Amino acid sequence: MKAGISSGEFLAKFDNSTMAPNAYALIKRLFPICRSITGDGIRASLNLLRDIIPLEIHEVPTGTQVFDWTVPKEWNIRDAYIKDNTGRRIVDFRDNNLHVLNYSIPVHRKMRLAELTPRLFTLPDHPDWIPYRTSYYQENWGFCLSHNQLERLNRDEEYEVCIDTDLEDGSLTYGEYFITGATKKEMLISCHSCHPSLCNDNLSGMAVSAFLAQALGAMSLRYSYRFIWIPGTIGSITWLALNEACLPDIKHGLVLSCLGDTGPFHYKRSRHGNAEIDRAVEHTFRHHAPNSEMLDFSPYGYDERQYGSPGINLPVGCFMRTPNGQYPEYHTSADDLNFVTIASLDGSLTQLLRVIQVLEENKRYINLNPKCEPQLGRRGLYRQVGGLKDIASGQMAILWILNLSDGKHDLLDIANQSGMPFHQIAEAASLLCASELLEVRNGLRPAEC
Amino acid sequence: MKAGISSGEFLAKFDNSTMAPNAYALIKRLFPICRSITGDGIRASLNLLRDIIPLEIHEVPTGTQVFDWTVPKEWNIRDAYIKDNTGRRIVDFRDNNLHVLNYSIPVHRKMRLAELTPRLFTLPDHPDWIPYRTSYYQENWGFCLSHNQLERLNRDEEYEVCIDTDLEDGSLTYGEYFITGATKKEMLISCHSCHPSLCNDNLSGMAVSAFLAQALGAMSLRYSYRFIWIPGTIGSITWLALNEACLPDIKHGLVLSCLGDTGPFHYKRSRHGNAEIDRAVEHTFRHHAPNSEMLDFSPYGYDERQYGSPGINLPVGCFMRTPNGQYPEYHTSADDLNFVTIASLDGSLTQLLRVIQVLEENKRYINLNPKCEPQLGRRGLYRQVGGLKDIASGQMAILWILNLSDGKHDLLDIANQSGMPFHQIAEAASLLCASELLEVRNGLRPAEC
Amino acid sequence: MKAGISSGEFLAKFDNSTMAPNAYALIKRLFPICRSITGDGIRASLNLLRDIIPLEIHEVPTGTQVFDWTVPKEWNIRDAYIKDNTGRRIVDFRDNNLHVLNYSIPVHRKMRLAELTPRLFTLPDHPDWIPYRTSYYQENWGFCLSHNQLERLNRDEEYEVCIDTDLEDGSLTYGEYFITGATKKEMLISCHSCHPSLCNDNLSGMAVSAFLAQALGAMSLRYSYRFIWIPGTIGSITWLALNEACLPDIKHGLVLSCLGDTGPFHYKRSRHGNAEIDRAVEHTFRHHAPNSEMLDFSPYGYDERQYGSPGINLPVGCFMRTPNGQYPEYHTSADDLNFVTIASLDGSLTQLLRVIQVLEENKRYINLNPKCEPQLGRRGLYRQVGGLKDIASGQMAILWILNLSDGKHDLLDIANQSGMPFHQIAEAASLLCASELLEVRNGLRPAEC
Repeated sequence: MKAGISSGEFLAKFDNSTMAPNAYALIKRLFPICRSITGDGIRASLNLLRDIIPLEIHEVPTGTQVFDWTVPKEWNIRDAYIKDNTGRRIVDFRDNNLHVLNYSIPVHRKMRLAELTPRLFTLPDHPDWIPYRTSYYQENWGFCLSHNQLERLNRDEEYEVCIDTDLEDGSLTYGEYFITGATKKEMLISCHSCHPSLCNDNLSGMAVSAFLAQALGAMSLRYSYRFIWIPGTIGSITWLALNEACLPDIKHGLVLSCLGDTGPFHYKRSRHGNAEIDRAVEHTFRHHAPNSEMLDFSPYGYDERQYGSPGINLPVGCFMRTPNGQYPEYHTSADDLNFVTIASLDGSLTQLLRVIQVLEENKRYINLNPKCEPQLGRRGLYRQVGGLKDIASGQMAILWILNLSDGKHDLLDIANQSGMPFHQIAEAASLLCASELLEVRNGLRPAEC
Repeated sequence: MKAGISSGEFLAKFDNSTMAPNAYALIKRLFPICRSITGDGIRASLNLLRDIIPLEIHEVPTGTQVFDWTVPKEWNIRDAYIKDNTGRRIVDFRDNNLHVLNYSIPVHRKMRLAELTPRLFTLPDHPDWIPYRTSYYQENWGFCLSHNQLERLNRDEEYEVCIDTDLEDGSLTYGEYFITGATKKEMLISCHSCHPSLCNDNLSGMAVSAFLAQALGAMSLRYSYRFIWIPGTIGSITWLALNEACLPDIKHGLVLSCLGDTGPFHYKRSRHGNAEIDRAVEHTFRHHAPNSEMLDFSPYGYDERQYGSPGINLPVGCFMRTPNGQYPEYHTSADDLNFVTIASLDGSLTQLLRVIQVLEENKRYINLNPKCEPQLGRRGLYRQVGGLKDIASGQMAILWILNLSDGKHDLLDIANQSGMPFHQIAEAASLLCASELLEVRNGLRPAEC
Repeated sequence: MKAGISSGEFLAKFDNSTMAPNAYALIKRLFPICRSITGDGIRASLNLLRDIIPLEIHEVPTGTQVFDWTVPKEWNIRDAYIKDNTGRRIVDFRDNNLHVLNYSIPVHRKMRLAELTPRLFTLPDHPDWIPYRTSYYQENWGFCLSHNQLERLNRDEEYEVCIDTDLEDGSLTYGEYFITGATKKEMLISCHSCHPSLCNDNLSGMAVSAFLAQALGAMSLRYSYRFIWIPGTIGSITWLALNEACLPDIKHGLVLSCLGDTGPFHYKRSRHGNAEIDRAVEHTFRHHAPNSEMLDFSPYGYDERQYGSPGINLPVGCFMRTPNGQYPEYHTSADDLNFVTIASLDGSLTQLLRVIQVLEENKRYINLNPKCEPQLGRRGLYRQVGGLKDIASGQMAILWILNLSDGKHDLLDIANQSGMPFHQIAEAASLLCASELLEVRNGLRPAEC
């Protein structure tokens, strides 16, 4: 039996002292697994999330047509290495799963450096770091290694290279968790879950979303919430293609990524530009995280590209700390367990809960006494001795709501026009509903307003 | 028999050398009266205004329902004091009517300081000033005094406190003066008139509006003008409730207040934000009072709160010098006869007349020769030798009017788009009407354009 | 037989090494001719343009009614001078045709300086320069001379003044050249051609437009192009009055003037303010001429005044380097062959061709695979190894086009929203059309997209 929460108690319900440490612990368990867009790595990872929330795991067979795409063959890897002529593994998948070009086809042969070099990827500017590279849709193989490792290789030596993988018919795996709210209108929260040992991008997103889902699952909510953990690009395309009937009910959405680094928040607006989710995030940034930055939509980035394609056009933005590609550790072995912090995960969770609180409480009300102000004093809503220079913010919130509750403005509009934080406006709206001076526009019962 | 005035002569009609000194003299006569939202004080004050203009005085009985409010009991005061044990009046209503908490119920008893203190209001930051406090809708009594007076009171002494008031069934009193113009569309000018001995807020508004009404009453005008002198809040609510049938004819409106201090003008936009009155004031500020400031509407302040409530929603802004609460003397005994100046009253009157001139002359014209420019030369409207680098402003005004008189732009739009002052545009429009190149859009006769 | 050009080759088609030098050579040939709004000067000038392009020369008889105007009498001049009492020509039309007030009526008499002075025009601030003055619609006569010349005149001497002109029934002459494109929708390019020996204003416009016309005439184009060379004001009014049936097909237009000085470009927006021509010029300025300036429409300047009159209201802007009246040499003898440069003419031609290229290629496309991104990889439109931080601009152009080709955005919108130059967007659109991922909105055949 879920416990309903009243306005203002939303954030207080969550136990910050355990959520973020538990999220970090989950990242630690997920870190060693070699994920890809299909295969046992993502499957095992989703199973670990089931310790937090009872998500469903879906399998979509290889060859399934999903819009313009086809679900690819499933990829699994057992081992990969480069051995020198003494038999020593000088590049070893067991040390770091980034060492293999993700989705490499199997290979096992001996070759000299000149032949091998075009298949070796390094980062000369960061000679200690291993890059992360993939080749999902073009059959290929290769190794990623530190530039220091590359420089130790010997031009005249013959190396044994081995990539022990399968690329065979199988399925694409994704996880889904649906929380039923008071209405079937829903919020979609989407996380790509296909990256191997990379912490910020995007184990941080997987862990934050899992604990967010756990928290919301325990509450009585206005909206329904759908969380999906999917491989990037092909996963969102697959989900959209198989769930077109759900799309009209998606009222808000977020892609979550890069939530564990210590940078300020960045929010990339949905393709709509000023959807309710965009306004809600912008409001919470202004009042609670003033160093944050709002970014315009662009058709490059994460799965918001698919949600924001012209034929889908959902109001889905992307919530991050430092955006993809904007930090040197991005897509390298330096995006490791040291790069994400419990404090950052905690801040991300709190800020996301603030956004959800705004969406949950944001409604359009009607002033039931629209001709002149109602007499607040006899309802106990007015300071008692007049003539003071200042007026308390609660009083101003009441006046703003009464003035703008004409059916054209929702509470978020009123908060923005008054310059006041949303929660003060929402609390004053509750008081006015209790005094029967205000009601929700859609004729909902007072209990719901 | 009224004399019509032609465009450009509007301001010249007014005799600045007498209006502002007379307004100041009126303030001096009104100052000693103890006004409140009802009672003989406001009644006597309105009678003094009748020396200037033949306003009607209305009485609305106690208990009348006005929207959500009820007309309160009438309050009258004869005397009030605090006496020490020698019988000396140490706080005396006869010295300053601010000493009594306005609308205090009667009291006459002896009490020690400890018991009295919660009923004493002072301004510790301005120890010489007496604050102004009211308690209209919550029965209460109290005294306002300077902090210096308070500090001279003695903890062990017994004081005699007396407030000799009546709070009984009676009526709410307001004044109204209607000037019939060429159309029944009207401008509403509203002044709160309920404050006791406070000069800027709002004897300045009462006096400026009275002389403005006197001046307009002598002229032949396009719009009708309705002036109302009312108690704050309950007065505008009462007037609106009793005059709902008039509201559709109110095309523009101003609340006048704080017009005698030496600060720059401030105009708080109507709830519409960009109504014709808002644009007219903004234009006159830009061209005639560049230090002035435009403020956005907010649902706190004077009676524009009621005119701008969502079910009334009239285009009524608030025209002030320093806004309420923005000067230390506000609502204190320091808002006295020294705080307002004849020069400031004069500047306020002149600026208001400019605004009214814009509204009177602002029309939408139609270019009767819209295909290419008309040949201005053969109509005597063009400089005669071509090739000069500059073009006189009168010439530019003609070209702008011809170009934008397409039925979508009024003269104020044209003035703003051209960057020229309204009166130049209006004068050029007269010339073009006389040349039959322009006519008023509504098919009015040339004499009216 | 015209050769079609494909996207991206547009500018490369033009031989910059000859166009601008040839334009300058044309200016040199036109310079000595004494043009006016009618007469043999403009007639001879248009005949010289026929060496470049086969324009038609139209004659409109004196007295023809054109909207509010009447075509004036034709003016021709043979000679004009002021002789001193030794018979020496001290002001001589044969030295510089600016010496005569343009459209002067005939005169031949002797007079003293005092009588002559009101008819003499000089520039005291530039004592070596002769001003340019006209009196077309008011019969008058006079001389323009340098201030130094004026100061050498003698108060007591009697001068012989002679202006040998005819002002008689005849015609107004203008030139027109129409290039038929794939559609009958057209672009109008208008040049005033009535100024005597003044190079920048507007022999530069006449020469640039003639070579632009020559270049466009050799190509296969989407739009039709109509060039007109007309006397200022009366010429555009005449053309508009006689060609009202053409106006609905005019989709874009430019007035060309002052294109040979060394200043940065200025573009005065059409009366529409944000028409496609305005957006196209603004885009090419941003990417190719960042020191350029966009100016708002105003009803003073060149013939854009007539094209932008409310009853005509065509989207015609004015493309210049330094605007009229903004350089000291304007309308003086200093606007001579030294004031315009081949490099400036070249830059003007190139920038105009860029604008025309944008208009030619700017279309609205539809993404044929609007649900999620299409799989670009299997079409050879995607980089092959994922995981890199940066994405090439060609790739971004493809993603922007796919995202915004929803029928609401044209390529220019997409270029502006993406911040990319138009030609990159247009090239990517071609690739997408070739891959059948995109088609022109109007159902045109792929070859046209």
